[in-house]
Amino acid sequence: MKRSGYCGDFREASIGKELSVFGWVHSRRDHGGVIFIDLRDRSGILQIVFQPENKETFCAAEHIRSEYVLSVTGVLRQRPEGTINPNMPTGKVELVVSKLEILNASPALPFEISDYVETSEELRLKYRYLDLRRPAFQKNFIMRHNVSKEIRNYLNDEGFLEIETPFLGKSTPEGARDFLVPARLHHGSFYALPQSPQIFKQILMVAGFDKYYQIARCFRDEDLRADRQLEFTQVDLEMSFVEEEDVMGVIEGLLKRVFKTAVNADIKTPFERMSYADAMLRFGSDKPDTRFEMEIKDFSAELKNSGFSVFANVLAKGGIVRGLSIPKGASFSRSEIDALTKFVGEYGARGLAWMKITDAGAESNIVKYFKEEEIQTIISKLGAKSGDLVVFLADEEKVVAQGLGALRLKMGKELGLIDKNKFNFLWVVDFPMFEWDKEERRWQALHHPFTSPKDGEALTQDNAKNAKAKAYDVVLNGVELGGGSIRIHRSEVQKQVFDLLNITDDAAKEKFGFLLDALTYGAPPHGGVALGFDRLCALLAGEESIREVIAFPKTQKAVDPMSNAPAAVSEKQLKELGVRVVVKQQPAAAPDKKEA
Amino acid sequence: MKRSGYCGDFREASIGKELSVFGWVHSRRDHGGVIFIDLRDRSGILQIVFQPENKETFCAAEHIRSEYVLSVTGVLRQRPEGTINPNMPTGKVELVVSKLEILNASPALPFEISDYVETSEELRLKYRYLDLRRPAFQKNFIMRHNVSKEIRNYLNDEGFLEIETPFLGKSTPEGARDFLVPARLHHGSFYALPQSPQIFKQILMVAGFDKYYQIARCFRDEDLRADRQLEFTQVDLEMSFVEEEDVMGVIEGLLKRVFKTAVNADIKTPFERMSYADAMLRFGSDKPDTRFEMEIKDFSAELKNSGFSVFANVLAKGGIVRGLSIPKGASFSRSEIDALTKFVGEYGARGLAWMKITDAGAESNIVKYFKEEEIQTIISKLGAKSGDLVVFLADEEKVVAQGLGALRLKMGKELGLIDKNKFNFLWVVDFPMFEWDKEERRWQALHHPFTSPKDGEALTQDNAKNAKAKAYDVVLNGVELGGGSIRIHRSEVQKQVFDLLNITDDAAKEKFGFLLDALTYGAPPHGGVALGFDRLCALLAGEESIREVIAFPKTQKAVDPMSNAPAAVSEKQLKELGVRVVVKQQPAAAPDKKEA
Repeated sequence: MKRSGYCGDFREASIGKELSVFGWVHSRRDHGGVIFIDLRDRSGILQIVFQPENKETFCAAEHIRSEYVLSVTGVLRQRPEGTINPNMPTGKVELVVSKLEILNASPALPFEISDYVETSEELRLKYRYLDLRRPAFQKNFIMRHNVSKEIRNYLNDEGFLEIETPFLGKSTPEGARDFLVPARLHHGSFYALPQSPQIFKQILMVAGFDKYYQIARCFRDEDLRADRQLEFTQVDLEMSFVEEEDVMGVIEGLLKRVFKTAVNADIKTPFERMSYADAMLRFGSDKPDTRFEMEIKDFSAELKNSGFSVFANVLAKGGIVRGLSIPKGASFSRSEIDALTKFVGEYGARGLAWMKITDAGAESNIVKYFKEEEIQTIISKLGAKSGDLVVFLADEEKVVAQGLGALRLKMGKELGLIDKNKFNFLWVVDFPMFEWDKEERRWQALHHPFTSPKDGEALTQDNAKNAKAKAYDVVLNGVELGGGSIRIHRSEVQKQVFDLLNITDDAAKEKFGFLLDALTYGAPPHGGVALGFDRLCALLAGEESIREVIAFPKTQKAVDPMSNAPAAVSEKQLKELGVRVVVKQQPAAAPDKKEA
Repeated sequence: MKRSGYCGDFREASIGKELSVFGWVHSRRDHGGVIFIDLRDRSGILQIVFQPENKETFCAAEHIRSEYVLSVTGVLRQRPEGTINPNMPTGKVELVVSKLEILNASPALPFEISDYVETSEELRLKYRYLDLRRPAFQKNFIMRHNVSKEIRNYLNDEGFLEIETPFLGKSTPEGARDFLVPARLHHGSFYALPQSPQIFKQILMVAGFDKYYQIARCFRDEDLRADRQLEFTQVDLEMSFVEEEDVMGVIEGLLKRVFKTAVNADIKTPFERMSYADAMLRFGSDKPDTRFEMEIKDFSAELKNSGFSVFANVLAKGGIVRGLSIPKGASFSRSEIDALTKFVGEYGARGLAWMKITDAGAESNIVKYFKEEEIQTIISKLGAKSGDLVVFLADEEKVVAQGLGALRLKMGKELGLIDKNKFNFLWVVDFPMFEWDKEERRWQALHHPFTSPKDGEALTQDNAKNAKAKAYDVVLNGVELGGGSIRIHRSEVQKQVFDLLNITDDAAKEKFGFLLDALTYGAPPHGGVALGFDRLCALLAGEESIREVIAFPKTQKAVDPMSNAPAAVSEKQLKELGVRVVVKQQPAAAPDKKEA
């Protein structure tokens, strides 16, 4: 039988036509001696009707249960008055079945196929093929397909070449933990799965391909605390003969097209550019959510000579004082304010100073330590109004920024200040080249050691703190969508950076030898970017978790309850690879896998 | 500076315009006090000219060597009479440089960037970024990009959804050897890299996605004897509610578009369908090269009662006799014929019977054993002409088919019978479901155990030999481009197949449990296909080896000489994974890696 079309696509225009459709029984109702079935495929639902007049078909239909697979032929008709469903795209029509074939049966399911059902994630993942039948999931994956199609079309139009890079590469000690793959022909040696195609895409620029892209799977063997997966997908690109604005322009064009296609949103380009310093100061974050205000202000200069000894001491030691104003926070109880203090404590803050702003002025037990003009400066700089609560952190810069940044986000959410219909894009730029590693007492690369410094930047220990990089992150609504940089293309600059990072020539050669070699042989200026594709799709689908846009995700315990991966393998396999398991844990130690 | 376009794209239409281009110094000639440079980028070459009148630029240009990276601006002009190069697309124009920036330098290269240079593959792979600069390579990867783009466009148009499947899956004992990845959170357990997305794409059909595709990386840890790689790319698709012809039709449409785009060839569809039995009989191969004739004929019936005891004995024991006619082979010397005998010996044949066809009839020392009508039957059935050599193999069917098939190919090549401009596509269909495993003395699945039998086929031990599968391979010029099948969608049929394969319920549950479960919950009829993407690209590029269309291939020793993967890792890494290396081989045992 030839399919006339997908279930969800039929409209009144097809009334009177004989049609054949395939699908799953979404639900069945028997009413007035007639059997009504909602037949579902990836496009949606079509109501099909079995009338007792057609005895053979009707009798066969009586055996049909939920999730049976049907092939039906019939004539499409207008639904009778009063049975029209305005909430369904196909709600004005129904198919009167003349021919039925039951292609497959199904027992009762372990859970209902519904968008609203509450089932444990473990069970949903074990029966992922059932869960994925949910209309919301079908929509998510159709959208993910459309997004990747649009990205490819855009990058094709822009002259990018899709070039595949290897999955079996070499482990590098930089970055996150690698997944290792024992090499059968070289016992004791291992391949590593790529954390990103970073080095290979730079090599492709040295090879003269000019513009490269890939929608690439990447791997990081890190604990899955947040909404992360062992394997994830990124839109990865690299361009030659470019500066920062060129790369940012490509991504702006890409996102503009994607948002139009996926959610019909017209986003404005170019995006706002915000320096890293500004983002940390005003929003306490390198990925500021600018959908609401409540900006942080610095009072280190204004309160330098205040009578409040806590501030004075911090400032004297080179620390800073910053604050923000929480709208309507003056009504918070003492215990509510204590909870805020505890919250910023998680970021290392040792206290939270506060003042309630009332019609009569500022009120709290620290107000007395401040001069009236200091109070006025605070109120005016923060734009605080009567009824607001002004809070301060005084500490080293990192603690203050992170604490107030987190508090700002928390209050923004709790007070309903965030307009969920906004798409606030921005670029964070002018990142520092280096950050000081307290534990190892040395400079680390903030991005990666191939990131180019700004033109004319001195790469000395003295200037390490101030040196800025040609790096950029694209942020949407407080989420980092991706980032990249212009790379170092001259080997003498690369050497200076390694020197500053205390990476010896030998270590550099061991780790990145072939990239360093490549840079000497006529490397062009180049730069690129990587976007988190799963996160982008989740945002577009309005999903909180990337697991809702990944067909077969792993649990937080890094297990796939459907296939029971990972699993034990045979001794023969291990012997061929020249490896041995050191401590074989009891199956009980991996509770996710007890059904294996 | 903003690039006006790629070097290779400028023509006479741009004469008189001021242009800026970037590129690599392909070659430099000093002639008549003027410096000529062939500037190369991925699109091709543009001649740029430095005239002594422009002193500053000219002096700077004197320092330029091969593979320096330049940014130049100048006015495009017509080349003077007598200097036009008709072999270059840009051969009528040249750019007179007014502004030069040397973006990077390069020392002398370890080998020349030229399409004709002979360098060891080891060295070429070590400096892959230099080798990839060769214009032929640039063309290959631009073509590969265009092929993948065209495939995606076609499949998008046909309603396929690109859905990503996991790389970290579960090891299955069927098929080739798996690459294993130790699981850090579950010591003693391993993920396996996918040999193909087979089970996941079937699961996606059960999940209702209807049409799936992916251009997917796959992994097989097999020895790289032939032109194989550890990781390879396949165009992978699956469809629901289809039969064999639907899937074959999709692939025919795909290849038609790809061949038009990539090599401007109009290929005729539908392709010829040839049964497996026919292919093995006529061409001695399940991937026949039909660009030349020299077909094999069976004489088992005609020679049943011949007086030649070698044939009679084989036929009496249930063997077969087949032959083919080698054009102009009657002139072969005795030692040339001995070489052919030795050649078929590699396929297990214990001798090669032959007759020279002359104007006077058949000549050889076995002719006397045959009746004249038998000789006439042989000559007429083979269409042998005076001057040909007729050869026979008598043995069990497999030996005869393989021996004569290989001999046919060898002679076709050596005698120049193959028209290299032909694209002869065909489908091999009606494959057997099972083949007998002599060693294990049991039936094995010829494709894989999820392949559907033909409708009405009895799945009994008695019928195992004859049972045909809904399987199909697409063959181009004797190369298997891909293959697939309609899958079993009913669990009771799957159980019958497992029974016949002597796979117990427990073993089936252990290996494929979740697929079997999925089949019970309303699986639709479905089928699919996978095409070897690297091989397809190599064929289209006219390359013998897939390594010429893979950016970073491994050597036959499974090593990447550029990155030195695989390599030793730290004890800390292994400890975290709970594995230990059993026998650490000396580096000397891996000669590819001595430069590590």
